[in-house]
Amino acid sequence: MVVRDSSSPVMGSIPVPDSDIGKHLGTLLDSTDGADVSFTIDGETFHAHRAVLAARSPVFKAELLGSMAEATMSSITLHDMTPATFRVMLRFMYTDALPELVDSPTVTIQGLLAAADRYALDRLKLLCAQKLWDNVSVDTVATILACAEMYSCLELKNKCIGFFAVEKNFKKAVLIEGFVKLVQQFPSIIVELREKAGP
Amino acid sequence: MVVRDSSSPVMGSIPVPDSDIGKHLGTLLDSTDGADVSFTIDGETFHAHRAVLAARSPVFKAELLGSMAEATMSSITLHDMTPATFRVMLRFMYTDALPELVDSPTVTIQGLLAAADRYALDRLKLLCAQKLWDNVSVDTVATILACAEMYSCLELKNKCIGFFAVEKNFKKAVLIEGFVKLVQQFPSIIVELREKAGP
Repeated sequence: MVVRDSSSPVMGSIPVPDSDIGKHLGTLLDSTDGADVSFTIDGETFHAHRAVLAARSPVFKAELLGSMAEATMSSITLHDMTPATFRVMLRFMYTDALPELVDSPTVTIQGLLAAADRYALDRLKLLCAQKLWDNVSVDTVATILACAEMYSCLELKNKCIGFFAVEKNFKKAVLIEGFVKLVQQFPSIIVELREKAGP
Repeated sequence: MVVRDSSSPVMGSIPVPDSDIGKHLGTLLDSTDGADVSFTIDGETFHAHRAVLAARSPVFKAELLGSMAEATMSSITLHDMTPATFRVMLRFMYTDALPELVDSPTVTIQGLLAAADRYALDRLKLLCAQKLWDNVSVDTVATILACAEMYSCLELKNKCIGFFAVEKNFKKAVLIEGFVKLVQQFPSIIVELREKAGP
């Protein structure tokens, strides 16, 4: 026999807070407790946990847990990004969130997209793509398209080509210096633009 | 110069999927890759990752990473829960989600609440409290209050006392066998009921 009265203030549900797994892992990252791998970039050292990196990135998984991984290799030197970019990427891997980014010379969205592509962090790639796309204009679309092509970001590439296909954008966007660089770097993009944005 | 036209289907935003950190950690748990600790309960063995357990539970953190932890201790025998309850708790720690629970003799919500209290998994405690509360009735409230008292779940305890305080519930709820057990186990609850639900 159930006597409930949902209109009574006594009843109602017990609220459960939102998932806090990202917050917990962020705290672990800050504390460095139990860290079992470290990265050195330009003299800066970052401590991390193989399990978290491997869970989040198939590239780290292969490097840190695969048959190629040396169990004793606990310090890794990286050359392909800035310390600031690595710090943001690391925080993203632990928390699934991006800190408020000031697009500075040390952490650019392009640099972060490159890092996300390098480590196969698909959701971070899309977050970067979204931020780049949010700033698209006839002045920037060629450079953004070059980025999308370089880092295999199909969603962003298709959006940029669509942007070129809009009549009023086309003439302006191809007469920007970035467009010349784009077609020098990726000559085949001309074919795609002709097919999808051409006359 | 920004030429955007948000009404154009070409524009719009690039969608970013929801956080997938729980899914990633769930996959890590399933694969057991890089596991560095194991638990044995009633002959069943579970492989896990110290970093994840330590991030999620301060109790595991002290046991696995603290100064008391033996670095070589990789196999731990547990006696205070069933293998099925441990499996659900482990999955919760990695994914922050509960699988659909069949409240069976091997995994009861009470057993899970006990485990969550043992390892200080506050969000899991609230999830269990919510499920217990969702099934409250004059027949069950005394047993649920005993649970809340046993496992230090203040939200649930307050709800139960509020339930007793509702006039039409009181007489029925105190004449249930569970009520006798409750006051035998926690005699002081009588005082609290007198204060908050009494005449």
